[in-house]
Amino acid sequence: MSPARLEAFSDGVLAIAATLLVLELQVPSDTDNLARALVAMWPSYVAYLTSFATIGIIWVNHHELIANVRRVDRQLMFLNLLLLMIVSVIPFPTALLGRYVTAGDGSHIAAAVYGGVMLLMSIAFTLLWRHVNQHHRDTALDPGRTRREGRLFSIGLLPYAVAIALSFVSAPLALAIYAGTAIFYLFPWLPEAPPRDASEAGSST
Amino acid sequence: MSPARLEAFSDGVLAIAATLLVLELQVPSDTDNLARALVAMWPSYVAYLTSFATIGIIWVNHHELIANVRRVDRQLMFLNLLLLMIVSVIPFPTALLGRYVTAGDGSHIAAAVYGGVMLLMSIAFTLLWRHVNQHHRDTALDPGRTRREGRLFSIGLLPYAVAIALSFVSAPLALAIYAGTAIFYLFPWLPEAPPRDASEAGSST
Amino acid sequence: MSPARLEAFSDGVLAIAATLLVLELQVPSDTDNLARALVAMWPSYVAYLTSFATIGIIWVNHHELIANVRRVDRQLMFLNLLLLMIVSVIPFPTALLGRYVTAGDGSHIAAAVYGGVMLLMSIAFTLLWRHVNQHHRDTALDPGRTRREGRLFSIGLLPYAVAIALSFVSAPLALAIYAGTAIFYLFPWLPEAPPRDASEAGSST
Amino acid sequence: MSPARLEAFSDGVLAIAATLLVLELQVPSDTDNLARALVAMWPSYVAYLTSFATIGIIWVNHHELIANVRRVDRQLMFLNLLLLMIVSVIPFPTALLGRYVTAGDGSHIAAAVYGGVMLLMSIAFTLLWRHVNQHHRDTALDPGRTRREGRLFSIGLLPYAVAIALSFVSAPLALAIYAGTAIFYLFPWLPEAPPRDASEAGSST
Repeated sequence: MSPARLEAFSDGVLAIAATLLVLELQVPSDTDNLARALVAMWPSYVAYLTSFATIGIIWVNHHELIANVRRVDRQLMFLNLLLLMIVSVIPFPTALLGRYVTAGDGSHIAAAVYGGVMLLMSIAFTLLWRHVNQHHRDTALDPGRTRREGRLFSIGLLPYAVAIALSFVSAPLALAIYAGTAIFYLFPWLPEAPPRDASEAGSST
Repeated sequence: MSPARLEAFSDGVLAIAATLLVLELQVPSDTDNLARALVAMWPSYVAYLTSFATIGIIWVNHHELIANVRRVDRQLMFLNLLLLMIVSVIPFPTALLGRYVTAGDGSHIAAAVYGGVMLLMSIAFTLLWRHVNQHHRDTALDPGRTRREGRLFSIGLLPYAVAIALSFVSAPLALAIYAGTAIFYLFPWLPEAPPRDASEAGSST
Repeated sequence: MSPARLEAFSDGVLAIAATLLVLELQVPSDTDNLARALVAMWPSYVAYLTSFATIGIIWVNHHELIANVRRVDRQLMFLNLLLLMIVSVIPFPTALLGRYVTAGDGSHIAAAVYGGVMLLMSIAFTLLWRHVNQHHRDTALDPGRTRREGRLFSIGLLPYAVAIALSFVSAPLALAIYAGTAIFYLFPWLPEAPPRDASEAGSST
Repeated sequence: MSPARLEAFSDGVLAIAATLLVLELQVPSDTDNLARALVAMWPSYVAYLTSFATIGIIWVNHHELIANVRRVDRQLMFLNLLLLMIVSVIPFPTALLGRYVTAGDGSHIAAAVYGGVMLLMSIAFTLLWRHVNQHHRDTALDPGRTRREGRLFSIGLLPYAVAIALSFVSAPLALAIYAGTAIFYLFPWLPEAPPRDASEAGSST
């Protein structure tokens, strides 16, 4: 299997998971005061934006990671499938968090479940990243960059773990940490990965 | 990241957002008079057609815009993600408008929310267009065309702003403006962009 | 725009429309006799299979049609968008037909609406086919084949028109005609179109 | 039609079917004890994971199978469409199994229906595999490998047939067999198929 095929399938799953998020935004059936009903849905909007941004970031990082791979082995394929399986489930905790974050007792569980899925996703990405670094390390790949990437991804596990614990104190606070983590990763902390080589434009299409 | 990858992912999200619109068309549960129930759903059909055409137009313009780009920088990637995030949400205001446009008080809010999402989408597209024009201007890109494109996209913001204001007068009127704007942009006001170069057929696949 | 891009976007919309059909199959909430509840859903299964096969056939024919195109003009792009807009709506009449075909009065309307969407789809495909034949006729395209294709597609309009009329007599009969039409087109009535040329393998990826 | 197009369309359908599985996970409307409500949904999680893994395995095997094909004939295209039609329906029995596996009488039917769809899917894949082996056998294809593949796929039909029978004894037991079958096929029982040839990287993009 060529890395291009793996990327095309992964892109498909990521694009669909991101676009399905909109289905959690349900048209309110209360017609008396639509404005108020829409405003009361604010946790759903925050959850939508956070999850969409998170999937977008995974997509960008996934692309940069696979750019280092020249030949897909079976283990890589299944680690990738594990990541996609977790990303595909994100619409569920997103809907859960949007519906329950302001709902008393349920809010703690909802926030913790969301964090749990995000943590699993980070772990799956880290496993994929390690596998690529151990078995597909390019001579072209800068070891300093690898170290910095490793540090950046490890940092990623921390806020999710902390937010899961804080979920039981305050669900909105946990949601704020999830949103903040997504915003943090939107910034380009690492220089852009150099292109695979001149043939990249062709082979990654 | 090659422009081809960016386009493939964007195409995926745009295609899915357009196709998910059909889920807002809900089979009526009233069996007594199905014909009447289906006719009463006319605002949903207008909203469906308007949103589908709008996403189709974004797709065409997005393609012509990215055709000018040779190398994707990180800022372009995130401006593009912002656009996709807004386009992906279109099924929600579409369902809202379809359900509430004939529903008294709620109709004004529904029409304004629809216009608000369309306005945000236009702004995101304009930001993306500006970025491409400032940082990826090709020597091949005709400055006269750039001026005319800029004027055409600015015109686009106007009807949405006007329709949002008119939403509070009459929601069906606002819907008519949204549909009219989509129809206006279906016409080829600009000559077709010249292909990137001979390698386009290969690299844009 | 290259034909390859047009095909990729169209493939995306067709694949999603076909896959969304499954959402019309709703898990019965009656637990007393699940077997009977599932058997009672038989019209939904027939509607699913018919619509899936129909979209599959459109996909195959769409591919063979676009294989004749070397450069996408704006009119082709919008005729294609019109076709996609109609195909994307197919999950709605499919759900309608599945739910109402055995439901007395509503069944006639449901069967006629399904046929109406199929007829519109056939017309949109015929318009696209005509445009390609008039403006993108390849010297390589056999005129005899064109004639036979034209006849085959015209034949397609007929069963839909007949079934719409028969809908008001018997909805299951109309459904049988829709299913029969799909089965008819599954057979290879025409010899396979010759590949565009040796570069096809590359440009259509 | 080039094998690359067939693969791209198939990948699209497989990716969407896998991602739509998440829609069977419905946010519980019971707010009193969200934790308990989420735990009670365990059959839905097992069904989600099993179906996602199964579709992932089909994708991997589908890719390796089509890698042997150089030219798509019409029969291959329709056998492939048959497979996609069955895979696309998987979200329905998955939702059915998740909802009914712990629900007394309905559980037996739900488990048997799930197994039935899986069995049909296996049969469709076997038909596709036979067609490729009979009509597209490459001189490069190792006959020993073909024999082992054939044995491995035949083994696949067995657990589904057994589990359907056992569904009427215990639905959770049948679910365990479905999950176990997916896990069994995750292991690389066969050596990786050799790449088609040097041009694969280009033609499979």
